[in-house]
Amino acid sequence: DVTLFGHLDTSLDYTDVSGGGDDINMNCTTCSVGVKGSEDLGNGLKAMFKLDFQFDMTERNRASDGTNSITDRDQWLGLGGGFGSVKFGTISTGYKSTGAMIDPLYRTALQARGFGIQSGLHLGAGENGQGRMTNHVRYDSMNMGGFKAIVDYSFDSDDTDADNGDDTYALTGLYDNGPILAFASYITNDHGDEDSAWKLGGSYTMGSFKVFGQYEKDDGLLSSFAKPNTVDGGDVWHLGGTFTMGNNMLYLAYGEGDDNSNNAGEYDSWTLAATHSMSKRTMVYTGWNTTDMGGADADQFSVGIKHKF
Amino acid sequence: DVTLFGHLDTSLDYTDVSGGGDDINMNCTTCSVGVKGSEDLGNGLKAMFKLDFQFDMTERNRASDGTNSITDRDQWLGLGGGFGSVKFGTISTGYKSTGAMIDPLYRTALQARGFGIQSGLHLGAGENGQGRMTNHVRYDSMNMGGFKAIVDYSFDSDDTDADNGDDTYALTGLYDNGPILAFASYITNDHGDEDSAWKLGGSYTMGSFKVFGQYEKDDGLLSSFAKPNTVDGGDVWHLGGTFTMGNNMLYLAYGEGDDNSNNAGEYDSWTLAATHSMSKRTMVYTGWNTTDMGGADADQFSVGIKHKF
Amino acid sequence: DVTLFGHLDTSLDYTDVSGGGDDINMNCTTCSVGVKGSEDLGNGLKAMFKLDFQFDMTERNRASDGTNSITDRDQWLGLGGGFGSVKFGTISTGYKSTGAMIDPLYRTALQARGFGIQSGLHLGAGENGQGRMTNHVRYDSMNMGGFKAIVDYSFDSDDTDADNGDDTYALTGLYDNGPILAFASYITNDHGDEDSAWKLGGSYTMGSFKVFGQYEKDDGLLSSFAKPNTVDGGDVWHLGGTFTMGNNMLYLAYGEGDDNSNNAGEYDSWTLAATHSMSKRTMVYTGWNTTDMGGADADQFSVGIKHKF
Repeated sequence: DVTLFGHLDTSLDYTDVSGGGDDINMNCTTCSVGVKGSEDLGNGLKAMFKLDFQFDMTERNRASDGTNSITDRDQWLGLGGGFGSVKFGTISTGYKSTGAMIDPLYRTALQARGFGIQSGLHLGAGENGQGRMTNHVRYDSMNMGGFKAIVDYSFDSDDTDADNGDDTYALTGLYDNGPILAFASYITNDHGDEDSAWKLGGSYTMGSFKVFGQYEKDDGLLSSFAKPNTVDGGDVWHLGGTFTMGNNMLYLAYGEGDDNSNNAGEYDSWTLAATHSMSKRTMVYTGWNTTDMGGADADQFSVGIKHKF
Repeated sequence: DVTLFGHLDTSLDYTDVSGGGDDINMNCTTCSVGVKGSEDLGNGLKAMFKLDFQFDMTERNRASDGTNSITDRDQWLGLGGGFGSVKFGTISTGYKSTGAMIDPLYRTALQARGFGIQSGLHLGAGENGQGRMTNHVRYDSMNMGGFKAIVDYSFDSDDTDADNGDDTYALTGLYDNGPILAFASYITNDHGDEDSAWKLGGSYTMGSFKVFGQYEKDDGLLSSFAKPNTVDGGDVWHLGGTFTMGNNMLYLAYGEGDDNSNNAGEYDSWTLAATHSMSKRTMVYTGWNTTDMGGADADQFSVGIKHKF
Repeated sequence: DVTLFGHLDTSLDYTDVSGGGDDINMNCTTCSVGVKGSEDLGNGLKAMFKLDFQFDMTERNRASDGTNSITDRDQWLGLGGGFGSVKFGTISTGYKSTGAMIDPLYRTALQARGFGIQSGLHLGAGENGQGRMTNHVRYDSMNMGGFKAIVDYSFDSDDTDADNGDDTYALTGLYDNGPILAFASYITNDHGDEDSAWKLGGSYTMGSFKVFGQYEKDDGLLSSFAKPNTVDGGDVWHLGGTFTMGNNMLYLAYGEGDDNSNNAGEYDSWTLAATHSMSKRTMVYTGWNTTDMGGADADQFSVGIKHKF
């Protein structure tokens, strides 16, 4: 049972930064191709794997062109059964996975994390709390009446540490039942001082309408992975809604963030978008975002196409 | 509908450069493996994609071994229908694609572009007229009685440009009907001055014989991508023929080129080759090329095997 | 006939180096995914290929993170028939392949070559005798009553050599029949002086018991690829056994090595391990190794899971 899968997205993005230039560029948002599979081991147990590779469809992909080599996404080997599942490798954290669940524009040019209204903990890769965690054991519990728990643990690879006390871990609780999705997540890299973040979020569906949002409070994990971490963090939140008519969807979201706890570096961001599903796997979209960073504006207008296989 | 495909070629190449050394090396000419697929969207429309990756079967492929990392070839997402097709991503230009159509030794150790008798516009990758264009929208028209048009447009990614006036584009017309293939192509990166090239070419089949050729006139696009481009170009042409007997083919081609319009850097090149098709997908070949660069000779003798899947 | 295949292994490894630190890390031992296929050409002949790519499931894979880019393993195109097979590309040597055949923990965290009791000629890649040889033609003879010969030849790519006299080659003889596996191998990179190595090894199966071992004598090929090679080599040997009960296996092996012929740099190594096969393709394992390098000890305790597809 081995399957090829992929996620392809290309967009034309017009960007206009106040005091800077404007330009139209072609971009590819997290394009990837991979192999996944499972094997029945009997006794309700199965072996599972996913090997996802990221590349850029619109630019060159090779080391000699800057840092733009073909790279990895979630790549893990695991076991599944009545107990839930346990996976080993490079895997998104529960913190990040739940953020993805409430963004209908996830992995497009207009995704919420692209404008900072989902925090940097939903991006990047590494073993210090980044969205995709390396050296990672992830446990997903079985579904208990809609409730699920996710435990993330990353084995720090820096063997110059005397105490080994800085393995990153996260705990996420998730309730997903009928119209309601709700989650809470806590993550820390155990570096000392300002080394953790937590969030609350969810979505609610009423017929054609859906509302979603998330509040993130960061002690400083966003801002620094240094040991000990003495950099203050900030908070990030957003609230949005969609209205679905047949194959079409309207999207509106507003969010705010700041870089640290004294509210320096504040910004707010509006996104208005429309999508049209040509099939279950192929979507075209367009939308506009404006982000105000204390007076300096950045605008983006995008037209894109996304295809999954 | 997702399919794995690949192109594999290995050869032993004896090279002898006058005044230099001689050597036998093993090479791999543009080996690649990829995934392609399509999805029927109804109403005569389909989503299509192709994701081709290049590697070197005979050498190490990793960033730490020079620049020899696994890289990309044509990688695009597109829509097809009665109107033709439109593709977004990294795609060969119409200029390059038509050159490939007349070379029966394309993607082997003896390909015409390997000896400079098809110009550098059939090689490389980038957004300035290189053979494989990045940030690229390519439109292929529907077939109109054998006639087809190809429009290439590349969105310049350098946002430090004030005017955005240097997006590369190309126009190609192609007539392919029975024994006749004919094409014309124009390409410019709009950098100012000597910033364009054009070509005419085609092939004609008479029973077991086929003749083919191409003339390219370059104002300087070949020679420089600088802005404005004040480097003179040159011209490149070749003429060749094949004779097919069952699974075997004889090939002979002659071509000339120069580096710029005052005829400095002239060279001419002869290639004689024979191929044997073991199947529709597997071919063995051998051949000899001699290139005379104003007195200095380079000779190459190759034996190779090529397999497609 | 195109097939996806892969080898996935993740382990948690506790390491303790005397005088150094101790740590628990997550590792991936030679994880890979690839494509292989064959085509019937008639007359008992077939075209064959294998394209294997290596990556690290537990760490980032990209050029900008050190040297950790996605890379190649065996990647070749070849022909098979009554004569045996001939392959062109990047291929394991017969020297290395026979070492793999006697290690039941091959491609796990506890593999013999990981502790130096199979020599460095079973590792790495290049054209100077490394385990995976580039620019390589490998001939495997037909099976003759259990006996097979392997010839390896690598075309040196360094064309600054005047004499071309340093193409690496290896000869391996192999007898594999019923309970008996026996092999001998000779390899040289022809660099002059201490430029070769040879080995003898095999295994014998008695019911649930199996014993295996290998003796390697190196003139210096292990130690230096310089021309001429004046660095002394050493010898490496190991002896081990397994006991199989149903899906479970016990493993014990002891080996010794030194860095050069005057016995400097001596080390010895014990490994005790147990494996449990959850299926033909999925295995869990645990084990302990201690390596004594003239007083300095390194200990490793590992728990891992391995899956093939």
